[in-house]
Amino acid sequence: MLLIRPLVPADFDAVWPVLRDVVRAQETYALDPEMDRDAGWRLWAETPRATFVAERDGVVLGSYYIKPNAAGPGDHVCNCGYIVAPAARGQGVAGALCAHSLRVGREMGFAAMQFNSVVATNTVAIGLWRKHGFAIVGTLPGAYRHATLGVVDCHVMYRRLDAA
Amino acid sequence: MLLIRPLVPADFDAVWPVLRDVVRAQETYALDPEMDRDAGWRLWAETPRATFVAERDGVVLGSYYIKPNAAGPGDHVCNCGYIVAPAARGQGVAGALCAHSLRVGREMGFAAMQFNSVVATNTVAIGLWRKHGFAIVGTLPGAYRHATLGVVDCHVMYRRLDAA
Repeated sequence: MLLIRPLVPADFDAVWPVLRDVVRAQETYALDPEMDRDAGWRLWAETPRATFVAERDGVVLGSYYIKPNAAGPGDHVCNCGYIVAPAARGQGVAGALCAHSLRVGREMGFAAMQFNSVVATNTVAIGLWRKHGFAIVGTLPGAYRHATLGVVDCHVMYRRLDAA
Repeated sequence: MLLIRPLVPADFDAVWPVLRDVVRAQETYALDPEMDRDAGWRLWAETPRATFVAERDGVVLGSYYIKPNAAGPGDHVCNCGYIVAPAARGQGVAGALCAHSLRVGREMGFAAMQFNSVVATNTVAIGLWRKHGFAIVGTLPGAYRHATLGVVDCHVMYRRLDAA
């Protein structure tokens, strides 16, 4: 039974190592690989509108944040970031987080959700976002320096939240 | 004779009213329309890698900033924002700023330039960016609430700096 609930500060002891390793790997996120825990906290927990964790049997397996993707006349579009602990991958955690975020985004009044930079080689994520209603609406040629694959494209993915 | 040079703090007396009015108009930028001067300074002059002004006969007519569009494995793509004073529009100032920014972006070692949110109704800007080598690489349906035209699309525009 996977429980998704708001993050509390103590959760970051479990979230940070996952976030740190994902960022260091330089395979999926366009974030500073040398980011320290304080910067990670600001990015993941402080700046966003809300942050959630997924836990099973009291163990945090993943997390996501939700925030406006732009300000003013663009603040009806939200953005989310998701991470899942390596040991918990392939168990539907990311899909559960995404489904939760779509519901929360709607509840917060957002009209659409946008992922700005989905690394084109991250086919597992792309397939999952497609399954959850996202379309690739743009491709940025060579916008990501993958740690092992070199320079690769990024996709912009988008879905409305107000559509049926 | 248009001179483009780095912004100094005193220039912001001329830049801020232009930026403020552009942001308040809610026709082109996805920024907080209630932004105050301090927030404007942070956005336009403090956060970016560099900020320039265009002046003619000692009068500041426009300005642009340049910064990385993402961090870590995405920090080889830059982003710019441009503003031109209403009285100076239609005189090639934006084009001169764009050409300057492409050169500066290359000098700074960026491999590409990306505009994340070009409002689809801003056809003058879109035409100008196309002329300067940018392509529409994606379209975000309904991503902008235009003050007078209602909900409109945004384009993502992109060009390589390292290509011939």
